[in-house]
Amino acid sequence: MSRREIKVGMLGLGTVGRGVCRLLAANGPLLDQRAGAGITLKKVLVRDLSRDRGLALPPGLLTTNAGDILSDPEIEIVIEVMGGTGSALEYVLSALRSGRSVVTANKDMVSTHGRELFAAAAEGGSDILFEASVAGGIPIITPLKESLAANRILSLHGIINGTTNYILTRMTREGLGLAEALREARSAGYAEADPAADVEGLDAARKLAILASIAFNTRIVPQDVAVEGIMSVTAEDIAYAREFGFTIKLLAIARETAGGIDVRVHPAFVPDGHPLAAVSGVFNAVFVVSDAAGESMFYGRGAGEMPTASAVVADVMDAVRHLLYRAPGLFGCTCFENKPLKPPGLVESRFYLRLKVADRPGVLAAIARVFGDNGVSLAQVVQKQAGDLAELVVISHRVREAWLRQALVDIGGLPVVREVASVIRVEGEDH
Amino acid sequence: MSRREIKVGMLGLGTVGRGVCRLLAANGPLLDQRAGAGITLKKVLVRDLSRDRGLALPPGLLTTNAGDILSDPEIEIVIEVMGGTGSALEYVLSALRSGRSVVTANKDMVSTHGRELFAAAAEGGSDILFEASVAGGIPIITPLKESLAANRILSLHGIINGTTNYILTRMTREGLGLAEALREARSAGYAEADPAADVEGLDAARKLAILASIAFNTRIVPQDVAVEGIMSVTAEDIAYAREFGFTIKLLAIARETAGGIDVRVHPAFVPDGHPLAAVSGVFNAVFVVSDAAGESMFYGRGAGEMPTASAVVADVMDAVRHLLYRAPGLFGCTCFENKPLKPPGLVESRFYLRLKVADRPGVLAAIARVFGDNGVSLAQVVQKQAGDLAELVVISHRVREAWLRQALVDIGGLPVVREVASVIRVEGEDH
Repeated sequence: MSRREIKVGMLGLGTVGRGVCRLLAANGPLLDQRAGAGITLKKVLVRDLSRDRGLALPPGLLTTNAGDILSDPEIEIVIEVMGGTGSALEYVLSALRSGRSVVTANKDMVSTHGRELFAAAAEGGSDILFEASVAGGIPIITPLKESLAANRILSLHGIINGTTNYILTRMTREGLGLAEALREARSAGYAEADPAADVEGLDAARKLAILASIAFNTRIVPQDVAVEGIMSVTAEDIAYAREFGFTIKLLAIARETAGGIDVRVHPAFVPDGHPLAAVSGVFNAVFVVSDAAGESMFYGRGAGEMPTASAVVADVMDAVRHLLYRAPGLFGCTCFENKPLKPPGLVESRFYLRLKVADRPGVLAAIARVFGDNGVSLAQVVQKQAGDLAELVVISHRVREAWLRQALVDIGGLPVVREVASVIRVEGEDH
Repeated sequence: MSRREIKVGMLGLGTVGRGVCRLLAANGPLLDQRAGAGITLKKVLVRDLSRDRGLALPPGLLTTNAGDILSDPEIEIVIEVMGGTGSALEYVLSALRSGRSVVTANKDMVSTHGRELFAAAAEGGSDILFEASVAGGIPIITPLKESLAANRILSLHGIINGTTNYILTRMTREGLGLAEALREARSAGYAEADPAADVEGLDAARKLAILASIAFNTRIVPQDVAVEGIMSVTAEDIAYAREFGFTIKLLAIARETAGGIDVRVHPAFVPDGHPLAAVSGVFNAVFVVSDAAGESMFYGRGAGEMPTASAVVADVMDAVRHLLYRAPGLFGCTCFENKPLKPPGLVESRFYLRLKVADRPGVLAAIARVFGDNGVSLAQVVQKQAGDLAELVVISHRVREAWLRQALVDIGGLPVVREVASVIRVEGEDH
C-alpha cells in the first residue's frame, strides 16, 4: 500500500515555529509511522526571508506570501504560530473555510474567537485543534474533551502561568520581595521585558477561558473572567501563608455552581497538602474535579519552544489521522449550552486578611464587631507588633465575597485602622 | 438531522459494570450531546439473572447468553468488564472480528493478548479501546498515544497500584509495620482477601506492560517485566528513607536505553522533592519524561467503581464518534518495532542497603573493601546500634545491578555479616 504524504504549511517562525521545525526534523520517521502518513512541511510564512534562525531549512521553504500556503491545493494542514488576532485570525478562518485543518498555539485567538473558528471549521468540514494554546506541553485539551468526557466537570484549579509561578516560588523559597523575584525571572528568561500580561493575570485568564468553555460546554471569553494579578502579594503574605500551612499560588479557577459558572484568576492560599501546592518554578498543572473520575491532575512544562512544539505536532498528527480516515471535524464545537456567569460578589470563599491597626486596647474588639455585623466569621486571628502599629492577620470562614468587601469598607473607615494591606482568598480546601 | 442511536452491549456486571450503568443513567443526555449520538445500553451479560445488584435496570436488559450481544446486528459497541482471559478473550475477539468496537477494562487480557486483539480489530475494521485497563480514572493511554505522540518517550515512572501505595503511605505516616498496614488496607476495602497480585507487584507489572508497549512502540508482555513486591519492606526501611530524604514507593518503571527496553516493578526510594513522592494513599500517578515535552505527570484515582467507569464510558464515546465518522480503527496497533529487552543485570541504579553486622572494630573496613572490589562505590554510610549487633545502612553510587548482587553475595559470606536485611533501589533522581 503506498503511503499518503500530507503537506503542511506553517504561518510564523518564532520560538514555537522553530520548535516545530526541530521536532519534525528530529523525530520525523517515527512520527510518520505513528500517524500513518508522511508529514512534510512544505511552506512557512515569515516576514523576513533573510533572517538567520539557526535552522537548516530546505531552499524555497520560506515565503512572505500567505497565499503560497492558503491557496496551495497540496497543503491540507495549516499550523498557525504567528500569534495575535489580526492577520492570524484572517488566515486561519480562510484556511478552515477552504477545508484545510488548522493547528494553532494562539490562546488570544482561540479564547476570544472560538465561536467563529468552530463555525468556519464546520463550514469547511475541517479540524481546528489547539492543544498548544493552553499549558504548552501538558496534555489538557484532549483529556478534557475526550478522556474525561463521561464526567460532569465540577471544578478546575490551574497553575497555568509559568512566569508568575516562578516568581511566587522564588518568593516562597528565598524570601524575596516581588520586585526582586521579577528581576530574577527576567534575567533567567522566564519573564518578558513587559511582563504585564503575566503578572496581571491576563495570560492565565485567556487560557482559563479556553479550559472552562470545554469543561462546561458553554462559551467563556476572557472578559468573563474576574482577574487579579500577583503585584500586590508581599513577602509578609508569603511568610504568613507558610506559618498557617499554605503556599501562595496564582490560581485560575472555574467552577460550575447552582448560581452559574464561576471563573476567576487571582493569588490564593493553597493548603500545603494539596497537589497544586507542590507545583514549583515554571511548571504548570491543572487540577480537575469531576463527578465520576474524582480528582485528577495534569502536570508538566507549560511553555517553552519544545514543550509547545510537542503539543502542536501532536495535533498535526491527529489532523493527519483524521484526514486518512476522512474524519476531520471529529471534535467540533462543544459549547452547546448557554450557561450564566456567577456574579463574583456571590462567590463564597475563605479569606486571608492583613490589617495595620493602632496598637491599643479595644482595637481587636472593634474590628471583630464590624466583621460580625457583616456576617463574616473568623477562623483564625494572629496579632503581631509591627513598628508602632500592630499587624492583625485574620483567616475567615467561608463568606460571600460581597459581604467581606463591605466589611472591609467599614473596617477601613474605623479610625484605629491604618491600612487593609492584603486580601487573598483561600482555595483548594474543598471543591 | 435525525440523531443516530448507538446500541451498546456489556459483558459482565461487577463493580465496574455497575459503575458504567450508574454513569450512563446519571449523565446520559450530556454524554449523548458530547458524543453526537444517543448511547443506549441494550443488553448485559451476567451469570445470575436474579441477583440484586442495587440498580434499577429496565426489564429484559440482562441475559445469560453471550450470543444475545455478540450476534445482535443492532449492537455496534461491546463493553467487556468480565475480567480474566478465558471467555472474555473469546467474546472480545469474536466481537472485534465481526466489526463491533470493543471497550475493555481488562488489564490481564490487554497486557497478555494485545497482539491478537489488534489483529482481530484490524480484521474487523473495529476499535479496541482500553483506557480503563490502566490507572482507572486517570487519562494515560490517550495522552500517550495521542497527546505525547510527537515525542520520543525516554522513561515512565508510575505508581499504578493503589493497594500497595495505601499500605506504604500508612507505613510512612503512622510508622506501621507491613502486616498491620495490610490488615488496615483490607478493613478499609483497599485490599482484597487475597492481595497477592497487588503486594507482589504483578498487577502493576500488567499495567506497566501496556504502558511500555505504547510508549516505545514495541510489544511488552507481563513476563518481560522484572518484578519485586513490597512484602520485604520494613518499618526500619521506611524510617531510614525518611532520614535520608526519600519516600518508599512501589514504582513501575520503563525506560528506553541504548541496551534495550528496561521494564521493572519494585519498591524504590524516591527523593522527597519528586512529584511522585507526594502521591499518597490510593492515588495513582504516571510520570513521563519525553524528548520535547520534558517532564509530565498524570495523577488521579487509579481504581474504584466510578473512576474506572469514567474511563470505560469515555472510550465508548470515542467509539461512538468513530462510528459516526466511519473511522473505527483510527488508533490501531502501534507496536511496529521489535526492540530487545535490557537484561536486568545490566541496569544501573543507586541502591539502599541495610546489613546486620557484628559490632566490632574492622567490620566496616572489611565490608567496604568487598564493595570496592566489586566496583560498588558508596555515597552515604550510617552505622547504628541494634541490640548486640550493629546495623549498617549504605546508599551506593550508580552501579550495574549484577555487580551489586555479586558484592552482596560476597558480603553475605563474611563471618561478621549476619544478614543482608534490605536491598532497595533509589530512583527518580534523574531520568
